[in-house]
Amino acid sequence: MPENLDAIFKPRSIAVVGTSRKDGTIGREILYNLVAYGFNGPVYPVNPKAAYVNSIKCYPSISAIPDKVDLAIIVIPKEQVLSVVEECGEKGVKGIVVISAGFKEIGEKGIQLEKELVRMIKKYGIRLVGPNCMGVINTAKDIRMDATFGSTLPLDGQVGFMSQSGALGNIILEYADELKIGFSKFVSMGNKADVSGNDLLMDFEDDENTKIILMYLESFGNPRKFTKIARRLTKKKPIIAVKAGRTLAGARAASSHTGALAGLDVAVDALFEQCGVLRATSIEELFDYAVAFSNQPLPKGKKVAIVTNAGGPGIIATDACVSLGLKMSTFDKETYKKLEEILPEEASTQNPVDILGDGGPKRYEKALDVVLKDINVDSVITIFVPPLMSKALDVAVAISKVSANYDKPVLGCFMGREEVLTSIQELEKNNIPAYLFPESAAKSIAGMYKYRELSKRSEGNIVHFEVEKKKVKSIIDNALSAGKGYLSQDEVRGILEAYGFKYPETQLVKNEEEAVNSANRIGFPVVLKIASLDIIHKSDAGGVVIDLEDEGDLRAAFKKVISNVKSNAPEAKIDGVMVQKMVKGGRETILGMSLDASFGPLIMFGLGGIYVEVLKDVSFRIAPITDLDASDMVKSVKSYPLLKGVRGEKPVDIEEIEKYIQRLSRLVEDFPEIEEMDINPFVVFEKGRCCNVVDARIKIERSYKQNKF
Amino acid sequence: MPENLDAIFKPRSIAVVGTSRKDGTIGREILYNLVAYGFNGPVYPVNPKAAYVNSIKCYPSISAIPDKVDLAIIVIPKEQVLSVVEECGEKGVKGIVVISAGFKEIGEKGIQLEKELVRMIKKYGIRLVGPNCMGVINTAKDIRMDATFGSTLPLDGQVGFMSQSGALGNIILEYADELKIGFSKFVSMGNKADVSGNDLLMDFEDDENTKIILMYLESFGNPRKFTKIARRLTKKKPIIAVKAGRTLAGARAASSHTGALAGLDVAVDALFEQCGVLRATSIEELFDYAVAFSNQPLPKGKKVAIVTNAGGPGIIATDACVSLGLKMSTFDKETYKKLEEILPEEASTQNPVDILGDGGPKRYEKALDVVLKDINVDSVITIFVPPLMSKALDVAVAISKVSANYDKPVLGCFMGREEVLTSIQELEKNNIPAYLFPESAAKSIAGMYKYRELSKRSEGNIVHFEVEKKKVKSIIDNALSAGKGYLSQDEVRGILEAYGFKYPETQLVKNEEEAVNSANRIGFPVVLKIASLDIIHKSDAGGVVIDLEDEGDLRAAFKKVISNVKSNAPEAKIDGVMVQKMVKGGRETILGMSLDASFGPLIMFGLGGIYVEVLKDVSFRIAPITDLDASDMVKSVKSYPLLKGVRGEKPVDIEEIEKYIQRLSRLVEDFPEIEEMDINPFVVFEKGRCCNVVDARIKIERSYKQNKF
Repeated sequence: MPENLDAIFKPRSIAVVGTSRKDGTIGREILYNLVAYGFNGPVYPVNPKAAYVNSIKCYPSISAIPDKVDLAIIVIPKEQVLSVVEECGEKGVKGIVVISAGFKEIGEKGIQLEKELVRMIKKYGIRLVGPNCMGVINTAKDIRMDATFGSTLPLDGQVGFMSQSGALGNIILEYADELKIGFSKFVSMGNKADVSGNDLLMDFEDDENTKIILMYLESFGNPRKFTKIARRLTKKKPIIAVKAGRTLAGARAASSHTGALAGLDVAVDALFEQCGVLRATSIEELFDYAVAFSNQPLPKGKKVAIVTNAGGPGIIATDACVSLGLKMSTFDKETYKKLEEILPEEASTQNPVDILGDGGPKRYEKALDVVLKDINVDSVITIFVPPLMSKALDVAVAISKVSANYDKPVLGCFMGREEVLTSIQELEKNNIPAYLFPESAAKSIAGMYKYRELSKRSEGNIVHFEVEKKKVKSIIDNALSAGKGYLSQDEVRGILEAYGFKYPETQLVKNEEEAVNSANRIGFPVVLKIASLDIIHKSDAGGVVIDLEDEGDLRAAFKKVISNVKSNAPEAKIDGVMVQKMVKGGRETILGMSLDASFGPLIMFGLGGIYVEVLKDVSFRIAPITDLDASDMVKSVKSYPLLKGVRGEKPVDIEEIEKYIQRLSRLVEDFPEIEEMDINPFVVFEKGRCCNVVDARIKIERSYKQNKF
Repeated sequence: MPENLDAIFKPRSIAVVGTSRKDGTIGREILYNLVAYGFNGPVYPVNPKAAYVNSIKCYPSISAIPDKVDLAIIVIPKEQVLSVVEECGEKGVKGIVVISAGFKEIGEKGIQLEKELVRMIKKYGIRLVGPNCMGVINTAKDIRMDATFGSTLPLDGQVGFMSQSGALGNIILEYADELKIGFSKFVSMGNKADVSGNDLLMDFEDDENTKIILMYLESFGNPRKFTKIARRLTKKKPIIAVKAGRTLAGARAASSHTGALAGLDVAVDALFEQCGVLRATSIEELFDYAVAFSNQPLPKGKKVAIVTNAGGPGIIATDACVSLGLKMSTFDKETYKKLEEILPEEASTQNPVDILGDGGPKRYEKALDVVLKDINVDSVITIFVPPLMSKALDVAVAISKVSANYDKPVLGCFMGREEVLTSIQELEKNNIPAYLFPESAAKSIAGMYKYRELSKRSEGNIVHFEVEKKKVKSIIDNALSAGKGYLSQDEVRGILEAYGFKYPETQLVKNEEEAVNSANRIGFPVVLKIASLDIIHKSDAGGVVIDLEDEGDLRAAFKKVISNVKSNAPEAKIDGVMVQKMVKGGRETILGMSLDASFGPLIMFGLGGIYVEVLKDVSFRIAPITDLDASDMVKSVKSYPLLKGVRGEKPVDIEEIEKYIQRLSRLVEDFPEIEEMDINPFVVFEKGRCCNVVDARIKIERSYKQNKF
């Protein structure tokens, strides 16, 4: 099967199987769109019941077509799809788009049918888009293929779009048309039986017509591969994505802190952040971004100027800019001086620059020119509110004219309805995005700036650590063959130490005398902890006593631990008691991992105790974690200043934390059997003193299957 | 001057002074709108240069009009305004709207002119809207007055609107027209020289045509009065407000924690929260709300059902609902059964209910009926994405029909452009809001639900406490006459104790021997703190040593404190050293107050130490604080669970904290001279043990003037 998607995107001939003479049917609309959009090659209608469709000779079957067919669009009842695909295979068709529904999306029966479909295309080396989709578009001049049943023919442009929802696909085509957004390619992916989002990303990466990538996603087939592609791709082209299904994932039974906190869609946020993908929170925002990205250069910094003819909208735009993390430009003295010369006395030369309600095209032109010239201005929002007798169109012309002289983004906000319609069209013609509300313009500049920052970031490295993989493998294999879920303390320790984690000195003892001998050897103060596979929350069961200073304390504590556990968890099998060197000082943190159903291992970092339990102040990234990811994770918790030291405390060794986050990532990457883990507390100290695992839990899953990658 | 606004809203005759025969001028447009909208009374154009305007006889001056004039709309150059107002006064005109600009908004000269204008209207008992505004509308059947120069005549309806921006006023009229939102009254307030937002609120409160109040605000003239009116009014009618200028206020030099954290617009959020006002973050959102509130009943609970013909938008709507705090309904068994009967096998009977792309009006009608009948459903979002050959209009009819049978809000989301236009009109005709994006529908339901909850809340009480006001007055008066900013520790203590706060036992000593005697009397352990008016941050200067267990410790600490301060703050005048009983245990909190330029005293609560310093986990409310406000403040910090006790700790006495928040509110209300204060730490204990002020700072402002209320 060919790696590339030329079979889909570059056919020299297309058959529409299941076209119809009846207006308004899907088969009819696809044929019509192919012809109306001017496909560069012959289109063959296939329908046993018609002699011609849309004035084109019709064939009774795909095999009856006398010429070569590169791509077949299939729009027939699901029961007939397989046999037509086989016919296509025999004829040498290399690309197929199955529009028909009734596959995976309807449950068991459909899943079976889809599996057979995939088997069939593999047999013939065919690439397949769909099933259950609305088709594909390639606007390239030498192709010009609109093989969708969309009600709007696309404009050609720089946007590569993929949608996982067919219903939204059509809405998107219409909406784009209204906003004059042009596409390079448009793909409704449907069930993604063969061609996946990742395949399309790779295609868009190499497609020189595609400069901006937009996605509407509901699920990720292979997030790991997505990460690899997107990390690379976003250095060159912006990817803007709406990921729906944000809040559905939440329901998950989890006994670890990490698991409990990994609900909602932190995984998607983490993934996008790691990959440099800009997340839009709605379709509306997606398009606000798209208009700006496809028409204007990226801002070189975060300093925004606003030129307006009305105070209120200027304030609204300022609010939006500042709250999105942009800065309002402070101009050069020279700029203020020039603005004073140009503008009437009552105007505001401060940013937002208010040229007053009677400001016409000349005033806009001059003010915009002065402001754009200022090196303290990285981007400009021009706001126009139509007063009476205004010359909206002339203002649009003036803005367009000045803007063309500068390599800085200029966005328009023309606040009116019918009376500014022609001026909005004028702006659009000159590639100036024209928004209805100031907030949209501000959001778009903030998005462009964010993308620029993301794309400049280094990709980071997956650091190599010396680890003892074999040792861990044998522990896990043994545990799995015993059918365990949670591992014993010894097993956990064996695994973590094999990957470079350090424990305070610890010994498992069977009785009070052994405990005393052990503590004398280790040195007081010590901690006692019950050792039992049946007790997950040792403290809750009264199975932990800390800070034992001498033998007397120790003996009393030993008795207490045993009696507590016997009364609180009478069923538990007690393996003994751990005597552990008491770790004093340092800062408690938590490192954890939870397995996301579609994203794989999700690594968590936070400060321990109330920071994780009450304030839920944690950060997530998807494994594998680069050195930069690890550094981002530590910096992005709110309590980060505590690690750097407040009130005269010394900072803890932050690099050491980052190193262990990466070691944890390596561990869970190497052993997908690990389903959940918390290292809590993981105590960190100032530089020069190694971190300590004070307690840890690992749960492994017997039947865990890796995602197919 | 009359209290009510009948002079503005219920004139029986209107003069337009400065009208013009020239099309497109403001004076001409106002006259045209008055006539075109059908004002129920005579309209008199005034212009010395025209014999008639708009086919109506014109008068050379207001005094030349032979009949009585109730309201004058003034559209003449600012220089002539005063004399015309005087002429109006002489003639007995009781209401004036000054459209003309060039007053307060242009700076010093304009401020002067505006003051004279106010003096003039007071002299004649005239009520004035403006200057610098776009006019007023009252759609009441017996009045029908559109005295604006808006380009769209308003629909009549239930919305009372006030806008502080003239430019936005016109946009709002147009946008409302497009969305079929009808107004009861519309007021462009301009500079609010006389008629204020509060005056209008009181008018809207009594106006039975006004059911919903919308506001666009940039500033509050009298927030305290607003609070009083809005708290009462929102029990009866929803107030939805956009407050612009959110991020401009931030710049403020503040040395207290409270001051530093009170930036941005926490004051506005606090005010709206206290008053039950729903805040919209943009004009777009304001209208999304307005459409829902003016057409549909409030939901009785937070459980939403979604009925859709496409999966993607259903998921998007679900995301939006859940992330806004709504709940997706779990239906009755009966409902699932009925849905299964009605819908095809492949449809989803789970919420969101997916009736599939081929679902026509019948299926919508039946599914919507079943879902609305379910007691687990408080509101419904119906989503329609036009597939080919769909009957969008029939679907709209079906939805309208079913919706009319239930007293539950039903919102529509018709995702398409031209092909759904007539169906959107059909929905609007039947009072079903029709949004373009699912997120807008979700946001509107969330807003309606939030308003319902807010309006049901008790108003709370201003609790009376026994305090010694005179004692505080004399301390503050003495301090002011000495010109002080920060008060001495003794003064602070005197003030706080007079208002019921408790200090741990403390004594000011002059030398080491006195310190030892004092500590022996108070009882060890004690704390030493430098006493110097010149040292605000005592710890930073090395002026605090805590937990001194015996005389030896104390003597060493005394020497250290003195030498630290001498080297760290050599200029500081040392008043002595405070010996204070060491407060052990308990939970550190912070109570504070910062004076907002327009809102007055802003009270802060949070946990002390890193919770305030690093995590900035605090809550604000505007004084005066009711018992409910205080309770809300404590509950709304993230670290609240720590007060209730975690990990087996006993809860602290939360009622006691609430009581002291209210005492603080009372103090700063009684003494507007207090500019800034922190009580930090304010240590609280479990029930039965009184809270302790461990440290506190108060800054008073000599020249502080209260806002005119």
